[in-house]
Amino acid sequence: MTAVELIEKKRDGETLTANEIRWLIGAYTDGTVTDYQMAAMTMAVFINGLNGEELAVWTDSMMHSGDVLNFDHIPKPKVDKHSTGGVGDKVSIPLGPMVASCGVAIPMMSGRGLGHTGGTLDKLESIPGFTTGLDQSKFTAILERHGLVLAGQSESLVPADRKLYALRDATGTVPSIPLIASSIMSKKLAEDLDGLVLDVKVGHGAFMKDVESARKLAETMVGIGSAHGTTTVAYLTSMDEPLGFEVGNASEIVESIAVLRGNGPDDLTEVTMVLAAEMLVLGKIDDSVEAARQRLTRTVESGSALELFGKVIEAQGGDPRVIDDQSLLPSASHTFELKAPKSGSVRGVNALAVGRAAMRLGAGRETKEDMVDPAVGISLRAKTGHTVEIGEPVAVLHFNDHDRVEAALALLRDAWDIGDPAGPAPLVIERISS
Amino acid sequence: MTAVELIEKKRDGETLTANEIRWLIGAYTDGTVTDYQMAAMTMAVFINGLNGEELAVWTDSMMHSGDVLNFDHIPKPKVDKHSTGGVGDKVSIPLGPMVASCGVAIPMMSGRGLGHTGGTLDKLESIPGFTTGLDQSKFTAILERHGLVLAGQSESLVPADRKLYALRDATGTVPSIPLIASSIMSKKLAEDLDGLVLDVKVGHGAFMKDVESARKLAETMVGIGSAHGTTTVAYLTSMDEPLGFEVGNASEIVESIAVLRGNGPDDLTEVTMVLAAEMLVLGKIDDSVEAARQRLTRTVESGSALELFGKVIEAQGGDPRVIDDQSLLPSASHTFELKAPKSGSVRGVNALAVGRAAMRLGAGRETKEDMVDPAVGISLRAKTGHTVEIGEPVAVLHFNDHDRVEAALALLRDAWDIGDPAGPAPLVIERISS
Repeated sequence: MTAVELIEKKRDGETLTANEIRWLIGAYTDGTVTDYQMAAMTMAVFINGLNGEELAVWTDSMMHSGDVLNFDHIPKPKVDKHSTGGVGDKVSIPLGPMVASCGVAIPMMSGRGLGHTGGTLDKLESIPGFTTGLDQSKFTAILERHGLVLAGQSESLVPADRKLYALRDATGTVPSIPLIASSIMSKKLAEDLDGLVLDVKVGHGAFMKDVESARKLAETMVGIGSAHGTTTVAYLTSMDEPLGFEVGNASEIVESIAVLRGNGPDDLTEVTMVLAAEMLVLGKIDDSVEAARQRLTRTVESGSALELFGKVIEAQGGDPRVIDDQSLLPSASHTFELKAPKSGSVRGVNALAVGRAAMRLGAGRETKEDMVDPAVGISLRAKTGHTVEIGEPVAVLHFNDHDRVEAALALLRDAWDIGDPAGPAPLVIERISS
Repeated sequence: MTAVELIEKKRDGETLTANEIRWLIGAYTDGTVTDYQMAAMTMAVFINGLNGEELAVWTDSMMHSGDVLNFDHIPKPKVDKHSTGGVGDKVSIPLGPMVASCGVAIPMMSGRGLGHTGGTLDKLESIPGFTTGLDQSKFTAILERHGLVLAGQSESLVPADRKLYALRDATGTVPSIPLIASSIMSKKLAEDLDGLVLDVKVGHGAFMKDVESARKLAETMVGIGSAHGTTTVAYLTSMDEPLGFEVGNASEIVESIAVLRGNGPDDLTEVTMVLAAEMLVLGKIDDSVEAARQRLTRTVESGSALELFGKVIEAQGGDPRVIDDQSLLPSASHTFELKAPKSGSVRGVNALAVGRAAMRLGAGRETKEDMVDPAVGISLRAKTGHTVEIGEPVAVLHFNDHDRVEAALALLRDAWDIGDPAGPAPLVIERISS
């Protein structure tokens, strides 16, 4: 078997055998297959695709390119949730403690923000002392003790994906549904899960701009999960406007705590509840999502979800007092109020524009090497359905560097669509299971 | 402009602008665009193609990636001939002296053999002392003096092609008509030609197995030539069986000399005459191919073509006495007669099998690093239309290494198709011009 033979097959639209795919991924991981050969292969895959069987093996081979976790000794169902990324998407942070306090173990490995989308790790690291870089024994110990751990991807897991993702990024092969799906699923399946809930964001603030391609991605990932024997359910949820009112890092921790107190924004709370309830059902804690939602509501009302969050913060080196004292979180030196240019009803807030503006203020990364400023961000004051008067603030920019404000404001200029009232758009668009 | 943007365009089937292509080829040549990016791009080009305008600019950019020759000071028409490669294809060797002795200057740059096809350079180097590695001033001086020079591609010409060809070879993107056409034409157009004749070989011993794809390649190259302002004419000629009777290196020099003496094999002589006559017409030496053929016949009969060959051999350091004394050429220590397995009429001799068998004996290269043995090869005794009796020799293998014979014989076992007589197949299939 040679790389050229396999490239030629995929180039000509043929199907690769399981042995061929396993050899390819293994040989790429160990360097026998070069970057330029894998670049040609991924372009051929981009254009000619992978069928369901090829994709299951491709994903499984990626997963087995490094360590695979095993949590058999933890006597709880293991379920995780993954989001394809959005603006203001802090769902994992309230969801984790809520679901874990109901008896599900969540070995959550998250990512960092890039471009207009934020990352759970960056948000958590705005908590003083909080560390997301845990070795495997620490990771497992926290999961055993609290049923929840919130960490970065271990270097020893799925090395093929790290290598392949960097290559795809440099060779124009990122937006390929099979390649995206296998990248996500290889990392999640390496967590040794009983169930997985996927939040596939759709809209102009999401990676997938339209429902059709989001559905395709969701179905593809659900198919990979099924083939692997891990029950996977995907939800398509709207990312036309930011989720919640806060887009930043420390500010999103504040908003997450509000959800855990039962007084978070409606849209953020609803998406959190939908995904969390599905996790309880997958974990066989409840038979129905209705029962699961009631249990989740109780765990919020009793304060046990919030209490669990404090324990996990402490276990990961963070200061749990942030839960009651937000002044312990970093805050920006300056604010600027963005005024409504006219009166009317808000028909939409462009999530992509808000995400990019927040990135420009320093809340996100333009390139992987950029530093994130945890204190800065954008607080929305008006979202869809709100009525605004001309000159009223629609957002507050929190910033530390005056030089960054102009670029952010330029991006926000047309972000609010103000006019006649529009009917509400669905928040949760579709549920996809095998 | 970034490499990723251009890869994305071609990936999505869009058309690249002239500026984009010029930037890409330049940046790849200087290393700004990496091998893995170019691998992704060439795969996208392989699958999605290049249109005529893109291809003209792509070829021109490749040509301008290094030095471009200029022979304005030579007061003769400059015309070259290129073959896509075959088995026993020594046409360039008699054609060069015949055409040059009629007043056309031929700055011929040839290649080495790889796989089952031989290379003009390897054949010429079987002449004791003959060197094909000439610097530019020596190259030009020989061309000025004799109207013919037979050399390898200069390192300073079309560096982009050398780099890109090696990459394509390792990434499964060799057999792409636009990439083949631009590779060939960029090198030929860098020779500063007034006209170019292409011999596109078709058949199972050729790179192009069927007339349709050969015609596509020919039309593509003729189009590139036209766009560049160099009149280009292509012939599709048959490569189902080897050309002439000799497949090797020194033995092909002997057969080339026979053509220059007017007693070469019919098929080899005819292909040589067709291509040579076209070169004289392109060079405006004659108005018609009929007149050109008469002139070529005269230059053979008068001995002036053979005399010119001797002078060029001498100018390139070779021993011109080989023309009259073939014992000065290397010869193999052993021979083996391959016998006809049955009586009948030869309906075909598999050129691919003979080419591979000759390679196994050492006449060709399996990999670029292999050494060629100039003395070994295969002499055919029976070709299409010949009648053979069982046990009569159909070929003689000339070899130096007993260990190589078995593999060669295994390849030759079914190479002769013997049965009822078949009608003659055309040698020259088609002429293609703009």
